[in-house]
Amino acid sequence: MLPTIAWDGETVVMIDQRRLPQEETYLRCRDQHEVAAAIRDMAIRGAPAIGVAAAMGIVLGMQRQASDAAGDRAATFEAIARELAATRPTAVNLSWAIARMRRCLETHLALRTASLVPELLREALAIEREDIDACRRLGDLGALLLPERARVLTHCNAGALATAGYGTALGIVRSAARLGRLEAVFADETRPFLQGARLTLWELMRDGIPTTLITDNMAAHFMARGEINAIVVGADRIAANGDVANKIGTYGLAVLAKEHCIPFLVAAPLSTFDPATPTGVDIPIEERSPHEVTHIAGQRVAPEGAVARHPAFDVTPARLVSAIVCERGVARAPLADSLAQLARIVG
Amino acid sequence: MLPTIAWDGETVVMIDQRRLPQEETYLRCRDQHEVAAAIRDMAIRGAPAIGVAAAMGIVLGMQRQASDAAGDRAATFEAIARELAATRPTAVNLSWAIARMRRCLETHLALRTASLVPELLREALAIEREDIDACRRLGDLGALLLPERARVLTHCNAGALATAGYGTALGIVRSAARLGRLEAVFADETRPFLQGARLTLWELMRDGIPTTLITDNMAAHFMARGEINAIVVGADRIAANGDVANKIGTYGLAVLAKEHCIPFLVAAPLSTFDPATPTGVDIPIEERSPHEVTHIAGQRVAPEGAVARHPAFDVTPARLVSAIVCERGVARAPLADSLAQLARIVG
Repeated sequence: MLPTIAWDGETVVMIDQRRLPQEETYLRCRDQHEVAAAIRDMAIRGAPAIGVAAAMGIVLGMQRQASDAAGDRAATFEAIARELAATRPTAVNLSWAIARMRRCLETHLALRTASLVPELLREALAIEREDIDACRRLGDLGALLLPERARVLTHCNAGALATAGYGTALGIVRSAARLGRLEAVFADETRPFLQGARLTLWELMRDGIPTTLITDNMAAHFMARGEINAIVVGADRIAANGDVANKIGTYGLAVLAKEHCIPFLVAAPLSTFDPATPTGVDIPIEERSPHEVTHIAGQRVAPEGAVARHPAFDVTPARLVSAIVCERGVARAPLADSLAQLARIVG
Repeated sequence: MLPTIAWDGETVVMIDQRRLPQEETYLRCRDQHEVAAAIRDMAIRGAPAIGVAAAMGIVLGMQRQASDAAGDRAATFEAIARELAATRPTAVNLSWAIARMRRCLETHLALRTASLVPELLREALAIEREDIDACRRLGDLGALLLPERARVLTHCNAGALATAGYGTALGIVRSAARLGRLEAVFADETRPFLQGARLTLWELMRDGIPTTLITDNMAAHFMARGEINAIVVGADRIAANGDVANKIGTYGLAVLAKEHCIPFLVAAPLSTFDPATPTGVDIPIEERSPHEVTHIAGQRVAPEGAVARHPAFDVTPARLVSAIVCERGVARAPLADSLAQLARIVG
C-alpha cells in the first residue's frame, strides 16, 4: 500500500507529491498550518486525500487547545476549519471531512479536551480507513463495467496518491488487472502539474501494470484508432444533477468518448457527492497561478511577459457521463435520481 | 517580417526554432546534409517552411556538382532529393518542393552546371516568395470567414515561423487583426514540442496581438464558456477527399469544435494539397522519439523506464472541417470536389 498520508502518533506524515517521481521524500506536519500549506501547495492533492489531510489537520490543531470550555473549543475548531477549507475551493471532500469532524466534536463536546482529542483522532482515522475501503469496493464494482479486454485511458492521478490508498479511477484499474480484464492503460500526462506523467506512471509501474504515457492532446488519436476503449477518471465534486468537476481536461475527454462511443466512467466515493450544489455551474472552479503554465519543472517555456490562464478544473455535464461508480453502487442516467438513491442507502 | 529562412548568397540561414523564445540564434547550412539535419531535428519545422528549406537544400547540393553530364546531374539530384525527402514523412510540401525543383532541372538540363544552378536558385526563391504571397492571400480570405468579434483558438505554430513568412493559420489571425475583426487569440501550448508556447506566443507578441497561452487540455473548457468562437489550424498534408493531417491534437479540437458549433478552419497553401493520396488513412504519420514525451526542456518528468508514445500528427476527417482556405479560394463540403476545382484553376 502506498504511503500517501499517515498519522504517526504525533504528526501527520505525507509523501511530497511535488517531488515525485524523482524523489521519495516525506513531509511531517506538526500543526494545522503546515497541513493547510501542504494542501495549498499540492504536496498532497486528490479530493479524497485532502479530505483525510484536513481531518488530521483538525486533530493537530485541537490538541494544542488548552481550554476545556465548550465555547473556546468550538471557536478554535471553526478557526482551524476555515483555514483548511480555504486552501482549495473545488474538491468538496475537504468540507465534507470538516463537517464530519464537526459532528464528532459536537457529539463529544461534554468531554474534557484530553478525552475529546482521542475521539477526534478516532474519527479522522475512520475517515482514512473508510476511504480505502470505499476505493476497494468501487474499484471492484467499476472493473465489471469495463469492456472485457479493457484498454483504459485515465487522466490526472486518481490513484492511491489521490486517496488514502488504492485509488478511485486507478482502483478500478487495479481491480480490473486483478480480475484479468485489463489489456492496457494509457495515462494522459495532465499538464500543467503533470500528475499523470509523474504520479500515475509511478504508482502503476510499482504495481507492474503496463502503462503508456501520452500527452493530453494525443487521446483523440488513440481513440480513433481503437487503441482506447474506455475512459475512467476521478472527481473533485459531483453536483446533485450528476455534473462532475474534475481536473482540467476531463470535460474534453468526455466529449471525445461520446464521439467514439467509448464508455466514460467517473469513480468517486460518496464523500465527493455534493447534494447541496444543484449543478456544475454552481461549483467554484479554482484558478491557479499562470506561472504553472508558462513554466515547466521550474523552467520558463513561454516568452517573458506571456499571458496565460490556468483553470485547474472543468465541469463535465451529466449527459456525457456513462456511469458514476461509488462504494455503494453504480449511478446511471438519469444521474440525479440514481445518485440520490445511492446517497440515501444506509451504509 | 520574421526571418524564418533566407538564402544569403552562398548558404541557407534559418532561425533555430528549438531555442526560441529564450535565444534568437541562426543556423547557417552549407550543404544539403546540414539542411536535412535541420529539418530532421526540427531547427526548422512547419510544412511550407520545410518545403522552402528542401528547395534551397537542393541548390546547395547541386552547386557542389562538378560534372556537366546530364546523367550525373540527374543522379546527384535524386540522391539529394532522397536525403531531404526522408527527413520527415508527413508534410507533403517537402516532396512537392522537390518535384517542382525536379521539373526545373529537367527544363534546364541542356544548360551547363554553372548556368543550371542559377536557374535552380531562381526556382527555390520563387517557391519562397510565392509561399509568402499565398499566405497573405489566404490570410485575407480566411479572416472574412471568422465571426466578427473573433476569439480564435490556434494549435501548434502555423505562423511566419512555419512558412516563408506571414503564416497560414496565423496569417488569418494577422489579417483579422488588421481588419479589426480579432478580439482574442488563445494558443494551445502544444505538447510535446511546445510550438504554441514557444513559437506562436513569440510571434504574436512581437506583432502586438494579444494572445493567451493555455495547456492543450484547457481548450474544451474555454469553448464551453464561449470564450473561443473559432478554431484555425494549419496542415501538413490534405488528402484528395479533404482529410487533413496536422500536428497531434488537431483532430481532438475538430471534435470539440463540432460539439460546440464553432467553425473549424484549416489554412494551407495549395502546396499542402496531395491529390495523389486518396484519404487520411493513406497519410504516413511520423512517430517521433518517446523521449520528447517523457522529458520536457531536457528534464525527465516521467519515472525512469516509463513507456511513452509519440505520434507527431493526427488526421482530421473531412466531415469535421468547416472550410479549407488556400491562396485561390475557400473549399467547403463536399471538400473533395471543392479542392479539385481550386487545384484546377490556373494560378
